[in-house]
Amino acid sequence: LNRRNAETNPLTEQFSSYLSRIDDSLARELDIYSWSEFYAPLRYASDGGKRIRPLILVLSSESVNADKKEGIDDNKEEIFLASSAIELLHTESVIHDDIIDEENLRRGKPSFHVKYGYNSSILTADFVLGIILNIGSKIDSPKISAELSKAATKMSEGEMMEIMLAKDPRLKEDDYIKVVEHKTASLFEAAAKIGAILGFGLEDEIRAMGSFGHLLGIAYQIHDDLLDWNNEDRLFNMLVKNNEQSVEFVAKMEKLFLCYSIKAKNELRKIADSVSKKHLEHLTDLTYIQV
Amino acid sequence: LNRRNAETNPLTEQFSSYLSRIDDSLARELDIYSWSEFYAPLRYASDGGKRIRPLILVLSSESVNADKKEGIDDNKEEIFLASSAIELLHTESVIHDDIIDEENLRRGKPSFHVKYGYNSSILTADFVLGIILNIGSKIDSPKISAELSKAATKMSEGEMMEIMLAKDPRLKEDDYIKVVEHKTASLFEAAAKIGAILGFGLEDEIRAMGSFGHLLGIAYQIHDDLLDWNNEDRLFNMLVKNNEQSVEFVAKMEKLFLCYSIKAKNELRKIADSVSKKHLEHLTDLTYIQV
Repeated sequence: LNRRNAETNPLTEQFSSYLSRIDDSLARELDIYSWSEFYAPLRYASDGGKRIRPLILVLSSESVNADKKEGIDDNKEEIFLASSAIELLHTESVIHDDIIDEENLRRGKPSFHVKYGYNSSILTADFVLGIILNIGSKIDSPKISAELSKAATKMSEGEMMEIMLAKDPRLKEDDYIKVVEHKTASLFEAAAKIGAILGFGLEDEIRAMGSFGHLLGIAYQIHDDLLDWNNEDRLFNMLVKNNEQSVEFVAKMEKLFLCYSIKAKNELRKIADSVSKKHLEHLTDLTYIQV
Repeated sequence: LNRRNAETNPLTEQFSSYLSRIDDSLARELDIYSWSEFYAPLRYASDGGKRIRPLILVLSSESVNADKKEGIDDNKEEIFLASSAIELLHTESVIHDDIIDEENLRRGKPSFHVKYGYNSSILTADFVLGIILNIGSKIDSPKISAELSKAATKMSEGEMMEIMLAKDPRLKEDDYIKVVEHKTASLFEAAAKIGAILGFGLEDEIRAMGSFGHLLGIAYQIHDDLLDWNNEDRLFNMLVKNNEQSVEFVAKMEKLFLCYSIKAKNELRKIADSVSKKHLEHLTDLTYIQV
C-alpha cells in the first residue's frame, strides 16, 4: 500500500513512519480475510488513501499522553486497530459516495463500482460491518464502539441529507455546513476523540480533541469543496450557483474555511505542548495546501 | 410492529409473548434514531419479519440456563439487545438481497429499494452498521461482537458466492449447500450461540447450541427454496434445472432438508430438558410447515 501513497500523498514527507505503521496495521486487518471474495476489492478500495483520519487518531493519542507517565505503549495495538476501523469507515463511505454521485474515477483509478460492479459495492458494506465489529471486539472498549457508532450513523445521515437537499432550491449555507458536520466532521471528530481516549486523556482533553477533530473536519471539507467547485456536481456548487453574487460567496467561504481552521488550532491550546501536538498543528496547516 | 406479525406469522400462536418482547426491544433500539431520515425506512424494513432468529436467541439463552442457579434475569437486557442486533443484520441482508435479485415485493409490500430508492438502500447499510455498533457497545462483550462479526462477513460472503455461482453452469449440490451455510446458517448459528453465551451456558452447551443453529439454518433454507422453487430465480432452481432428473433431485433435497432438521434436533439432546428446549424442538418442527 505504501508505494502508491508516496507518489501522491502530501502527508508522506513529514509523516512517513506513521503512515507506514497505519498502512501495515490496515493490511494486517484485511489479511485476516484473504480467503474472501471481498479481499481484493477491499484492498483496491483502501489503496491510495491519504490516511489523514487514522493519522489524526494516532497523533491525538500521543498528544494527550505527552506529559503523562501512563504507558501509551500498552495501548499501541488498540490505537492502530482503531485507526484501521476509522479508515475502513471512510473507505466504505467513499465507495457509496461514488455510486450515489455516479463518479467513475477515484484517486486516478476507476471507482469501486466501475471496477467491481454495483452488487459487489452493496455487499462490501455488509462485509466491512463484519470487519469493524471484529476490530471492536479486539479493542474491547464500549466507549470506542460508541464513538464508531456515532460516526457511522452521522456519516450516512449526512449523505442522506445531501441527497434530500440537492433537490431543494432553497438550499442555504447553514444546510451545507450541517451536511459537512455530519458527513465529514463526524469521522474526524471520532478519530481525534478515540485517539485521546486510547492515549489515556483526561475528560477535558478528550473533549478538546473531539472539538479539534470536528472543526478540522469542517475546514477540510470546505477546502476540498473550494478546490473542486468548478469540476463537480456537489452540494457546495449548487450553493454557489444559487447565490446571485457567487464570486463574493466563494470569497466568503474561503474566509469561513480559514476561520474553522484557526478555531481547530485554538482547541489544541488546551493540550500540553509536545512534538505530537506540533504535528497536529502542522497537519491543520496542510489543509491550506491540499490534503 | 405486533399487529401485522399476528396476521401472517406462524410463530405467533405459540410464541406471542416472546415475539412481543422481541418487537418491543427492536422498536426501542430504533426509536433512539427517531430524528433520522433512516427511521421510517428502517421501521418499514423491519416490519412484518417473523423474528425467527431473535426467537432462537432468546430460547437458546433460556435453554442452557434451565437447570442453573445463575440469574438469567441479570442478562435479560443484553439478551433482547442482542436479539435486535441479529434481526437488524437479517433486515439489512433482506434489503440487499432484494436489490440484487431485483425483487419488487417482500412480505406482500413493495420491497425497500422500490419504496425508498437505491441510494437510500445503500446508505441504510452504513446506518445499520452504526446501530449494531451501538448495541455492541451496550452489550459490552467481545465474544458477542466477534460472533456478530463472523455472521456479517459470512452472510455477505455467501451472497457474493451466490452471485458468482449463478453464472457457473457446473454448479453442484455442494456449492449450493456451501452458499446456504454462509448466507443463512451463519446467522442462525450466531443467534443460537449468542443466546447460549448470554444464558451462561457451559462451553459444551454453547458449542451444541451453535451446531443446532447452524443445522436448523440449513434445513430452514432448503425448505424455503423447496417451497419457492417454481416461482423464483434462485440458485436452487438453477440446480434443479441443471439436473437431468429434476423430479428425483427435488425428492432428494426434501430428504436432505429432513436430515438436517433431525440433526439439528439431535444437537438439542446435549442440553438438559426444559420448557424452553421443548420450544426449540417445536420451532424446528415448524420448518416442516412454513416458517
